Amino acid sequence: MERAKIRLHVEHPLGQGQAVPLTEAQAHYLFGVMRLAPGALVALFNGRDGEWSAKVERAAKRGGDLICQAQTAPQTTPPDLWLIFAPVKKARTDFIVEKAVELGVARLVPVQTEFTNSDRIRPDKQRLHAVEAAEQCGATFVPDVAGLVPLPKLLAGWDESRRILWADESLAGPAQVLSGLPPGPWAILIGPEGGFSAAEAARLRAAPFVTPVSLGPRILRAETAALAALVLWQTALGDWS
Amino acid sequence: MERAKIRLHVEHPLGQGQAVPLTEAQAHYLFGVMRLAPGALVALFNGRDGEWSAKVERAAKRGGDLICQAQTAPQTTPPDLWLIFAPVKKARTDFIVEKAVELGVARLVPVQTEFTNSDRIRPDKQRLHAVEAAEQCGATFVPDVAGLVPLPKLLAGWDESRRILWADESLAGPAQVLSGLPPGPWAILIGPEGGFSAAEAARLRAAPFVTPVSLGPRILRAETAALAALVLWQTALGDWS
Repeated sequence: MERAKIRLHVEHPLGQGQAVPLTEAQAHYLFGVMRLAPGALVALFNGRDGEWSAKVERAAKRGGDLICQAQTAPQTTPPDLWLIFAPVKKARTDFIVEKAVELGVARLVPVQTEFTNSDRIRPDKQRLHAVEAAEQCGATFVPDVAGLVPLPKLLAGWDESRRILWADESLAGPAQVLSGLPPGPWAILIGPEGGFSAAEAARLRAAPFVTPVSLGPRILRAETAALAALVLWQTALGDWS
Repeated sequence: MERAKIRLHVEHPLGQGQAVPLTEAQAHYLFGVMRLAPGALVALFNGRDGEWSAKVERAAKRGGDLICQAQTAPQTTPPDLWLIFAPVKKARTDFIVEKAVELGVARLVPVQTEFTNSDRIRPDKQRLHAVEAAEQCGATFVPDVAGLVPLPKLLAGWDESRRILWADESLAGPAQVLSGLPPGPWAILIGPEGGFSAAEAARLRAAPFVTPVSLGPRILRAETAALAALVLWQTALGDWS
């Protein structure tokens, strides 16, 4: 079967013979930018129904329709893992979002800490960035992006049935073996460049649902710590194990 | 003790009271760009002697001298791990180099494969990028960067006492537990976007010193695969364990 080169995230349900109407922006991208004509194939996913090969049925300037032909990949939903991260510089925040999509997280939670430099994160922009990352890396799932929340508020309202794996910079040394961690819902917590304040660290250390973890003997940048913690968690408890 | 904000990699030996002459480029950076005056502190490392706090003794337009005051961090040399990677787009290749420095590798080996898009990697530029990454992330070691070598030539001349951990995309599925791997010198091998050709994969599968490994159920971009493999190896065999 001919394989679609373009992958597109849509909100519409997908299934055999299903017609999928395009938004103006999608029509502009497919027909204006990528110059697709009727009959061309596009790979579609919506985060629920796997990936489908769909044929262009109608191509117009401000809209169009695709028809689903066949499922080309099953739905792969990540484990119930959240990534809580303090926004860093834009390129590195984008990178955290992109890599979280590739490595598989269910939800992204930007958090404001004392040393967070940026308070200008836009959840809608980050969600778009997550959609783009999923389109490019072949993922069939796009994590939600929560609004920025201050750390004290996040911890005060935390559902303690979800444990937090905290990349604690003060533990620099051999990485813990994570194989002893209990299964269930988890969140990984990564601080900003400069780490957490003493008060924040004390608050985290005192929380019964927080497990501090070391990420090796070197100081890692925030985005590297996020990736390393995701890989360790996925290998110990997630769908890499 | 006052802490130096600027970290600088130098070639010169470092030790108590040691005078370190600056190159013209270093003098330009410290005195022209960063506006340091005599008496200011700089953190120095050379990949062998740890990190030293050094005081500006003489500041001139085309040179200068620093005097080592005290060691501020011990030398941390990574395990005997190489990263063999096919160069990808510039930003993502830079990223592989930067993250390899943070996660700890001894040597970077760019490899030309059938599907490698770029044959224009400059080892000197990548070495400079590794130096910058080490300066910024607090590392005391900078990996060497080898010249680009075609994969068949690399494998034909390979010293078989160094095993290769090959991130084999065709194995997508649960990540292998790496705890059974033998200790000793290793290299991680990451392909380009698009993976290895069938002939290359067959050649790798037939080599007794190559261990294929899966990196989870999702398709990872080249730079993400490099990071994930480094984290898994460091945790199983390296200085994270």
